[in-house]
Amino acid sequence: MKKYEISEISDRIVSRLTLYLGILKELKETQEEINSLELAQKMNTTAVQVRKDLSTFGEFGVRGRGYNIKELINIIENILGINENNVVSLIGYGRMGYMIASHTEVLGKGFELVSVFDKDKNKIGKITEISNLEVLDIAEFKKYQKIQNIETVILAVNTENAQELATELVENGVKAILNMSACKLELPENIAIVNVDISARLKELNFWRLNFQKK
Amino acid sequence: MKKYEISEISDRIVSRLTLYLGILKELKETQEEINSLELAQKMNTTAVQVRKDLSTFGEFGVRGRGYNIKELINIIENILGINENNVVSLIGYGRMGYMIASHTEVLGKGFELVSVFDKDKNKIGKITEISNLEVLDIAEFKKYQKIQNIETVILAVNTENAQELATELVENGVKAILNMSACKLELPENIAIVNVDISARLKELNFWRLNFQKK
Repeated sequence: MKKYEISEISDRIVSRLTLYLGILKELKETQEEINSLELAQKMNTTAVQVRKDLSTFGEFGVRGRGYNIKELINIIENILGINENNVVSLIGYGRMGYMIASHTEVLGKGFELVSVFDKDKNKIGKITEISNLEVLDIAEFKKYQKIQNIETVILAVNTENAQELATELVENGVKAILNMSACKLELPENIAIVNVDISARLKELNFWRLNFQKK
Repeated sequence: MKKYEISEISDRIVSRLTLYLGILKELKETQEEINSLELAQKMNTTAVQVRKDLSTFGEFGVRGRGYNIKELINIIENILGINENNVVSLIGYGRMGYMIASHTEVLGKGFELVSVFDKDKNKIGKITEISNLEVLDIAEFKKYQKIQNIETVILAVNTENAQELATELVENGVKAILNMSACKLELPENIAIVNVDISARLKELNFWRLNFQKK
């Protein structure tokens, strides 16, 4: 695989990789190969864009024939690191946390929820539904971080607690945060952050709804 | 306000608008004005990008002085249509649906949850926690769509049911879908769709985690 420079990669490409993966996984049931034009049509983009996106990570396609679907799935899964097991901790066992802990299939392939933390004494010691984990005291995070080798956390806490907690988690070894809060986290540059802010997505949706109607 | 052509607008700009809004709302507590350079630093981007993004929607800043924060918040909220009340229906009262219905503050300013639908006879007729809505039979959606003027729905159903249901909702007057499922919806071009796929975001996060460590 081509060695790419991480500085060349935009978050937009990585986001599109997950879309390619979803499309390829559906297609693999019915066909073996796909060319960049077909893939572009499924993605509502151009064949040039598809070839450019994929060539960022290496030379996979065969000129004039396209891509082998299973191979391409495997390559993308390797790029995303989800052919291996990645452990994840959940920080916050409020409503959002409860939903995730009792519905771990939302995490998808390659991710395993290994622990759940909260600071609320009423929640600590409870066993989470379905995922069957004991809610641990956030004060003990550091200890578990070492034992479980936790690099990735899902931060499902209130906006007002998010920044302070995130800073502390990073000091204790966390490298990647899926931020479910509305807080725009400020953390060292080498820390990966992806935001899943439902209210922001709803605002975007509203923009498109209003503007599609003006057309 | 400048009349922009909707075809010029990328989903990336709209996504950044929601980020500008979040930053401006924090800043308004402590300052009155901001220039494009400051805003760019907060956004991890360039002043040129900020000016370009905002000028897409009109000429708001004063050369050499920057933007009045409250004015800019108001302008962005108008662009996003959240200075008005937008009604929203929730489709699916499973775990994700439950979380949203009992936690409607995740919807943010400008959105009001007015109804909840499910097809499960065991759920229909129940009253949702906190939001206090009766779970309605999805078979009656068409009737309520007209009464409540529902254009926006949050689709919180399983992947396998999502496409069929979305097609039906659109036939019954829905214009915008916040898609919480992993299904890549195929709908007419004039329908607004925004995806909130936690598993896709986690994959992106993993990519960055793995690659930041190679640096």
